[in-house]
Parts: sequence; C-alpha cells; structure tokens
Amino acid sequence: MRNSRRGDVDPFIVMDVMEAARAAEDAGSHIIHMEVGQPGTAAPEAARRALAETMEADALGYTVALGMPALRARIARLYKDWYGVDLDPARVVVTPGSSGAFILAFTALFDAGDKVALGRPGYPSYRQILRALDLEPLEVEASDANRLQPVPADLEALDWQGLMVASPANPTGTMLGREALGALISCAQDRGAAFISDEIYHGIEYEDRAVSALEISDDVCVINSFSKYFSMTGWRVGWMVVPEAQLRQVERLAQNLFICAPHAAQVAALAAMDANDELEANMAVYRRNRQLMLDGLPKAGFDRIAPPDGAFYVYADVSHLTEDSRALAADILEHAGVAVTPGLDFDPERGARTLRFSYARSTADIEEGLARLKAYMEPRGT
Amino acid sequence: MRNSRRGDVDPFIVMDVMEAARAAEDAGSHIIHMEVGQPGTAAPEAARRALAETMEADALGYTVALGMPALRARIARLYKDWYGVDLDPARVVVTPGSSGAFILAFTALFDAGDKVALGRPGYPSYRQILRALDLEPLEVEASDANRLQPVPADLEALDWQGLMVASPANPTGTMLGREALGALISCAQDRGAAFISDEIYHGIEYEDRAVSALEISDDVCVINSFSKYFSMTGWRVGWMVVPEAQLRQVERLAQNLFICAPHAAQVAALAAMDANDELEANMAVYRRNRQLMLDGLPKAGFDRIAPPDGAFYVYADVSHLTEDSRALAADILEHAGVAVTPGLDFDPERGARTLRFSYARSTADIEEGLARLKAYMEPRGT
Repeated sequence: MRNSRRGDVDPFIVMDVMEAARAAEDAGSHIIHMEVGQPGTAAPEAARRALAETMEADALGYTVALGMPALRARIARLYKDWYGVDLDPARVVVTPGSSGAFILAFTALFDAGDKVALGRPGYPSYRQILRALDLEPLEVEASDANRLQPVPADLEALDWQGLMVASPANPTGTMLGREALGALISCAQDRGAAFISDEIYHGIEYEDRAVSALEISDDVCVINSFSKYFSMTGWRVGWMVVPEAQLRQVERLAQNLFICAPHAAQVAALAAMDANDELEANMAVYRRNRQLMLDGLPKAGFDRIAPPDGAFYVYADVSHLTEDSRALAADILEHAGVAVTPGLDFDPERGARTLRFSYARSTADIEEGLARLKAYMEPRGT
Repeated sequence: MRNSRRGDVDPFIVMDVMEAARAAEDAGSHIIHMEVGQPGTAAPEAARRALAETMEADALGYTVALGMPALRARIARLYKDWYGVDLDPARVVVTPGSSGAFILAFTALFDAGDKVALGRPGYPSYRQILRALDLEPLEVEASDANRLQPVPADLEALDWQGLMVASPANPTGTMLGREALGALISCAQDRGAAFISDEIYHGIEYEDRAVSALEISDDVCVINSFSKYFSMTGWRVGWMVVPEAQLRQVERLAQNLFICAPHAAQVAALAAMDANDELEANMAVYRRNRQLMLDGLPKAGFDRIAPPDGAFYVYADVSHLTEDSRALAADILEHAGVAVTPGLDFDPERGARTLRFSYARSTADIEEGLARLKAYMEPRGT
C-alpha cells in the first residue's frame, strides 16, 4: 500500500466543525450554519427547466473539451455586460467547476518545483492543489493595512513563477481596486511570471463593482464559476479565460484531464445566465444579511470586523477573546448552536485569532444566529 | 505568456478525424460515426426522472467529497451482485468521471518522477494525464500472442512504481482472465508497486464475464465509471475503490481537487443502477452490432481482427492495406463517408498499421457503415 508524499495535504479544520454540527443535529439540536461556503438557494428555475427539457431531447454525451460553443459565447458576452470588455469566445474554456480550472491552469502554466505566490489568508485549497501537483505555494502574509490583500512590496524580494489573487477574497470579502490589481499584474508580468485571478465571487459585490483582471491585461488567466452568483455549487461548472497563445495547450490538457465539463451542468449554466430576476433576488438577501451582520456582530461582541466588499463572509479578529479559534468555534457550536469557521484553514498562523462568519443562508437563519451569538457572548461581558 | 513543459501533451489524432467529419457534415455529407468512444443512448429514463424530481426538491449543493452515502452503498452492492465480493461502502469514492479518478489515484499514489507501467496499445489519456502530473508513463509493447495485454514477462526487467491495466481494454476489447490479472497484480505487489485496474467497460462483455481486481486482492485501486454500461458519458461521474489505508489521503485530495463529483450526476447515477431493463436493452444492441461487425468487417476486407471480449470496439490490423493508418482513415472518411480511428493515438508505433472501429451507435448505423466500407474496399480487390 503506497501513499504519495504530495498527496499528504492538510486536513480542512472546518470539516471538524461540520462533523460536530452534524453530530449535534443527529442528537436533536438545531444548528445555525454560519460555516458554509455556498448559497442555500438552488440553481435558478430557468436553469432547471432548461435541463429538464434538454434531457428529454438530447443524449447529453460528451461536449467538446472547451465547452458548448453557445455557453462560451454567452460567457464572452458577460465580459461585455459586466466589465465593458470585448472578449473572443475562443478564449473561454468551460471547466468542471473552478476546481477544474485551477488544476488546468496550474498544469498548463507550471512545472514541478515552480513557486506560486499567494496572499495569506486565502482559500486553503489553493495551496493544497498546488502541493498535490508538486508545485510550491509561497504564501505571503498580507497586512491589515492592505485589508489582507497582497501588494507588490510583499512579493518583490521573493522568487516565484506565478501569482494568484482573489477578489473578492475568501475569507475576508475584500476586493482589489483597479489600481491595486494593476500593480499586482505588472509585478508578475515584469518578471515573466503568470498571473491568475480568481474571480469566483464576482457578481456578489456591495458598494463598488469588482474589477476583472481582463479589464487591465489580456496576458492573465481569469478563473470564474457558476457556483456563487449563479447559485450552482453542486453542479461543478466554471470557466477560465486564457491568453490566445495558451489555448492549444489548455485544450489538449482539458481533453485528457477531464474530457469535458458536465454536459447537464453546461446546459443549466447557459440558462442561468439569463435568470436576472432570480439572481438579483438572491443578491437582495445577501445585502440584507450583510447589513444584519454588520449591525449584529458588534452588538454580540465581535466588533473587530470590516465591511466585506463582496462574497458572503465576515472575517472577524477575535484576538481579544481567544488565542485558540478552534476551541472558541467548538464552544460556540456547543453552547450557542451556531457553526462558525475558525480562521486556521485560511491562515495557519494568525487564524488562531480569527473566525469566519458566513451569511450565505436565509435571512431568518442570520437573525436567529446573531441572536444566539449575542446571548452566548453576554455572560463574557464583552 | 508561459506554457509549462508538462502541459505539452500530444494531440489526439482522432480529433482531426472528428473535425474532418464535422466539416464534411457541414458541407452536406452524411457520415457514419465509427470513431466515437461513447454510447449513442441517453442516460436511462429512470435516471433522468430521478434528477427531474430531485431538482425541484433539493438545492443540489455540494455533496461530501467522497460522494452521496446512498450512491456509495449502492456501488458497494454492485460488487456483491456482479462479482460476489463483499465491499465496505467506506472504500468507495465517487469521482468526477473516471478522468477524476485517474487524477486522484495518480496524485494519491505517486510523486513527481515516478514511473507507471502501461500496456501499449492503450487509452492515450493515461499517458497524457501521467505526464501532466509530472509522472513518467512507461509503455510496454503488448504482444499479439497475449492479445495485446501486458504480461509479467513484459514488465519484470523494468523499474516502475505503479502498473495500470484495463480489461476490457480500449482499443482492443480484450479482457484479462482471473489468472492473467492475478499474475499482474502479484507482479506489482511483489515489488511494492501500486496496481490500478481500469474497469470502465465492465458490464459490456460478451462471452465471459469481466473479472474485477477486487476479486483477487484488496490492495488495489479499481476505477470505474457510469459512462459506458450505464450510458452516462457527459454526466462526468465515476468511482474508485481504494484500500482502507488510502482513504484518508484520497478523501483530503478529493476535497481539495474537486470538492465533490457533480451532485446532479450522482442523483442520476444512483437511479441508473437499477434501470436493468433499459441497460440490458442497450447491451442487446451492442451484441447485435458486434456480430454484424464480426461478419461484415472481414467481408469488407478487414479480416485481421479478433472478436472483442468486451467494450464496443474492433481493433483491426490493416498492415496488408497501409503503413499509414491516418491517411487510410482520411481516405475512408472522404470516399466512404465513414469516420474511423487510426491506431496512432493508442500505439504511436504499431498504430500506423491499425484502425479502431466503434460499434457503439445504432444497429442501422452499423449496417450502413459496413455496407459503405464494403463498397469502398471492393475496388481494392481485397
């Protein structure tokens, strides 16, 4: 029995929380889920209807590796609608979720041993996927002053072949404005490194609109997904936009690594893109939930927070409460019946003093969760 | 703009055939598709119905990484029903197609530079995925005497850390009997190498039943799929059975690399497993088509063939006709209107003198295709 070294990736600490939450529910407790990273809503009704109809008319065999031409064209149009960018549909690659896009981008761009710079805190699977592909994640500690996003000064002295950023970011919800994003793109291009922009939370933004790396440069790899704004997590369909000179390599890799993204999900995704009313109704819930969180968390004693620019998370500094966010999360689950995520998955060091609260679920759940958190914290006198 | 070395995988030669066939169809020609590697049938009606119902009742968010518990349990039962093997559902991992299972198995088992032995001819993506993961495919030429399947004598003198076999194989349709499979498993285990058994064509078998590596040993990695027997190619759902000691590593990798297999496809797959009547009706078509091929190909002059044990391919030696299977395939497409696959994808050397004929489509198509091939070959006097 063999196990590889590169397969020895870290466990998700949030999985312990989810397992404990499930056990509590099995024992009869009612748990509010503020640990989840996905919408509680289904795919838009129009998406489900399109699939139900297509299923009866089409065998839904393999699509071509780069995805259904109509879907690629529709995604290209989104860049015009959202960002004013003219994008050739040929540069759009439909992938099995953004997960598939990460695998495809990393294998197309980097060879074993290459270093890819990432800001910390960040989505933990970035570094795990890199390790599983024998690449080296180079995590730079982002500062509070930069709202936990990396800046060129964090990176300039280091040796790396790729840079990946996320805006809006998970777990913080902070965004990179045009200037900050442009500075990072230049920083990568100046040294001949690849620039990868994770834009999977685009569309879920509050005060300002999110900036796409494609507004700034064509020589970038942009990754997006139908999971969040389009509310299709479990369908596993996302996309990637690559420079023209990379297409051939990406196409061959996609043919071999995936054959294609799920056909049924592609059919549903195409219809989801026109379901504006339903998607905007979801957004209205996120907006309301966000406001409830920004009001309610400080009242409960979690007052070291910043308003998120996008996504559906609040990342709280709890250093005045604990040096052990894992123990605090476990205690909140046990005594308040609220599942929250300790920051350790996102930042193995500073995450011992942070919690991530998700407000992706229903407003009723958010109200109840905040009430429980307030009642839990009151005896602590905060 | 960067392109990695490991991403520089070979093109699929069959793609040229498919592109030429599409161009001919666009120009008004009617083409018979004997190049395809997938059933022409849709997912079973029960599978589509189950999904249509579940879509309206469930948000279809992420499933747990290893797959829906009910699906894992049902897959475990298949091992009892088909092979008489008692299998713990905990050892079943639902994957995004067998493609996802290959990525998961290779990253869980091997580190950069490790060598994985494969018989040649074989499914070309094996070697391409290995290369994309910085692993080294070690292809051994299988002999006609062994029906183009590898045997321990082909492998013993070489250095390798893993061995992957397929039975029934693509492109040959040949199977490994219990003894031959057992000898290969021992050959791997004796040197501490991993053994991976690709069983994606199981269920599509004609004279004898296919033997699973799990009938012989628990210390193997078995990969299967809903694409072929269950007629669900485009849904991208497959599975893997791993030794208990590998589960933890595989689960963590699956969480990070894929999050989960497509939820909708999992729901459909669970229902497909009980659609016996429809699946057996598909099998009756394959049986009929196979017999038509075994009768018709020799009459058309393609007489150097062996009856396939399983799958839906006939692999023909055409060395009496050409030294350039690619040119022959192009000529057959142009003059007979039949798309066939040159052997070069499966065997870059000997494949210049072989063709693969697929009989996965309707019986009417097979009859028409054989008639066209006969008419095409007649002037050649074969």
